[in-house]
Amino acid sequence: MRARAMLVTGFQAYGGRGINPAQEIAQALDGERIDGTTVAGRVLPASFHKLRGAVEELVGELRPRVLVCLGLWPGEPMLRIERVAFNHAAFEIADNEGVLEKDAPLDPGGPVARRATLPVTSIVEALLRHGIPARHSTTAGSFLCNALMYHALGAVDTLAPGAKAGFVHVPYVPAQVALLQQDLTAKAELELHQRADLASMALDLQIDAVRTTLRVSQAA
Amino acid sequence: MRARAMLVTGFQAYGGRGINPAQEIAQALDGERIDGTTVAGRVLPASFHKLRGAVEELVGELRPRVLVCLGLWPGEPMLRIERVAFNHAAFEIADNEGVLEKDAPLDPGGPVARRATLPVTSIVEALLRHGIPARHSTTAGSFLCNALMYHALGAVDTLAPGAKAGFVHVPYVPAQVALLQQDLTAKAELELHQRADLASMALDLQIDAVRTTLRVSQAA
Amino acid sequence: MRARAMLVTGFQAYGGRGINPAQEIAQALDGERIDGTTVAGRVLPASFHKLRGAVEELVGELRPRVLVCLGLWPGEPMLRIERVAFNHAAFEIADNEGVLEKDAPLDPGGPVARRATLPVTSIVEALLRHGIPARHSTTAGSFLCNALMYHALGAVDTLAPGAKAGFVHVPYVPAQVALLQQDLTAKAELELHQRADLASMALDLQIDAVRTTLRVSQAA
Amino acid sequence: MRARAMLVTGFQAYGGRGINPAQEIAQALDGERIDGTTVAGRVLPASFHKLRGAVEELVGELRPRVLVCLGLWPGEPMLRIERVAFNHAAFEIADNEGVLEKDAPLDPGGPVARRATLPVTSIVEALLRHGIPARHSTTAGSFLCNALMYHALGAVDTLAPGAKAGFVHVPYVPAQVALLQQDLTAKAELELHQRADLASMALDLQIDAVRTTLRVSQAA
Repeated sequence: MRARAMLVTGFQAYGGRGINPAQEIAQALDGERIDGTTVAGRVLPASFHKLRGAVEELVGELRPRVLVCLGLWPGEPMLRIERVAFNHAAFEIADNEGVLEKDAPLDPGGPVARRATLPVTSIVEALLRHGIPARHSTTAGSFLCNALMYHALGAVDTLAPGAKAGFVHVPYVPAQVALLQQDLTAKAELELHQRADLASMALDLQIDAVRTTLRVSQAA
Repeated sequence: MRARAMLVTGFQAYGGRGINPAQEIAQALDGERIDGTTVAGRVLPASFHKLRGAVEELVGELRPRVLVCLGLWPGEPMLRIERVAFNHAAFEIADNEGVLEKDAPLDPGGPVARRATLPVTSIVEALLRHGIPARHSTTAGSFLCNALMYHALGAVDTLAPGAKAGFVHVPYVPAQVALLQQDLTAKAELELHQRADLASMALDLQIDAVRTTLRVSQAA
Repeated sequence: MRARAMLVTGFQAYGGRGINPAQEIAQALDGERIDGTTVAGRVLPASFHKLRGAVEELVGELRPRVLVCLGLWPGEPMLRIERVAFNHAAFEIADNEGVLEKDAPLDPGGPVARRATLPVTSIVEALLRHGIPARHSTTAGSFLCNALMYHALGAVDTLAPGAKAGFVHVPYVPAQVALLQQDLTAKAELELHQRADLASMALDLQIDAVRTTLRVSQAA
Repeated sequence: MRARAMLVTGFQAYGGRGINPAQEIAQALDGERIDGTTVAGRVLPASFHKLRGAVEELVGELRPRVLVCLGLWPGEPMLRIERVAFNHAAFEIADNEGVLEKDAPLDPGGPVARRATLPVTSIVEALLRHGIPARHSTTAGSFLCNALMYHALGAVDTLAPGAKAGFVHVPYVPAQVALLQQDLTAKAELELHQRADLASMALDLQIDAVRTTLRVSQAA
């Protein structure tokens, strides 16, 4: 029997940011039916030590046919469809539990990397055809997003073989950038040309983009 | 008698781009009433030789109390409220008539620069409060946008004294970036890390931003 | 009698940075003879309240035929030859005395802007011919560099009429970026894609660039 | 018997660029002795079809104890020490033979990725201590550099087991950026804010950086 649900996960807010579009997209799509399949949207803790167990439990419980994990890439102006997760952690900031992994493998016994099973190129082409800026990417970074992608692909391999699974990085939402600007201005600590990249994308367009990602993945 | 209308101008498409959000915003707001004042939205030619006469004619005819000229700043991730126009032209690309001014004053007899009479700081603060990324800027560049701002401020000075006038740079819209990406991919001429900055902002948010700009300017 | 010396000024370090290439260039060129003219290299305080008096005193004392003021533009990858100074201050960080001017004119009675009298276009062309990345710029920002440029051009106007004067922004030096990276890593406060732009240029190339700037300016 | 030489490879110029710092560094270090070991500097063709055979032949012939492959990352402001090569090719421009691989594995039977055996973290720390901007990276891209890194690590695995091997991306040299700017200006096709990132690093600093990379790698 093929897996039925499509699972979308989003991290909770981290790095001192009040919101995380990844979480909002997962919650917005929870329960929606796309081409006859129900979407399960779940929020994951921004915790290096908890995310592996959390995603393994979700995959084991739902046995999804499609798994799209979402995370924020601050400053990125478009959707980024990740091709590969690397067995390595090197954080620049701490996670929500204060864990600051500087240089370690995610799984000493695991493969060097795991390849997304999502149809990455077709997703990018479909998004661009729909007028949504998107690109493929060959790194999910070395923080929680990459760790989740690595562990999620491992979980799918054993618990939901054949599922289309991967990771999509999303931009800030505009209100988040506006808040960040007010915060930076109040602090008067950084010069504008030294500030975070401040690109953003409207939440509804981000949700449409993930919807298209799910549709293309299911059809693949 | 004080001028009544609020005038919003937007350039037509240029630089080989199919559309220009500035034009779309001006057309979208044309005829709208904001706090009891009607907005006149007009499209201006992307022509160095025609823009001065065109804006002088509009200002003379409408005697606006508020004038907001709009132009696209490719790659800019947010609204940019310009503080000053500089009496200088130095183009990097030709205008729609093939004019490529490399290094010349806009008006040999004019002042070195003209200061926007819009309440720039209040506009930026209001936009950020509304969750719209925005910043003030001290250069409108040295292409058509700066030239229009310079001539528009000169026209207001003589034909609509006391009017709140200035220039707002707007980002790409997302569909424009998606088209640009498909075009660049087809050409295979540039590497991604060499490509245009590809930030964008949804058209409806850009329209809201200009609406807020007009409201704050009229109240100033 | 024409002014004799060529004056180069550089700001002292500011913004918590240990060094400032602008200061180092001014000191390196002090006393050097270029095409028969002696260069006076002077360091200026990173103080909004002191810089005007300091530059007026220097210009009055030396009556330079060429005045090139230097300042750091963090993250800028090349020399930036400024075309214009704007009568406005809007700081993002405080100066070395804690002054944080948010939105004020530099001189309520002064012109909106002052145009550099340096041969900007010729300087850029000469630098590029010498293999040194450089561009002209239409904003010196709204912090101390712009304020100094504005007041320096005013001082030249009355105390050294006919002098070629203006402002050149310089990049970080590499060691400065390396220190900044170590500092940011130690703080673990920012993600790399949120960090300062980290471009730099070797100090000796920056010195050569200013030498070329002086030579071209004197010959103009 | 341990391998004796340290091998440094650099790609020849590609993408229509006249020079490639990677090639110049390899040639500059050829024959130099570092801590008692001779460096062999070799230039590789910018050809997708030839690079695998070329690097396998070099590794088989020299059995290096350290292998550092070099390539240009246009716009990158610092040294980038790559952690991993991914079994995938997706070109944005053609190689020197007109090959334009859009989406294919490098080796259908090979592992998803290969991890650099260079001491990446120690190299970055040493470079920063020496005042040279550098960072680790988790993607070598999807063009020739990544392909070479993948095949080089495979060759070392079988032909020089235990060798410290990996890839270092280098920035433009300043003269290259100056040429690029003159070329873009002549073409008048792109606006500055749309141009390639234009960061660069002096060639001698790049050579020092690779020297430090070799020294740290040999000592590891």
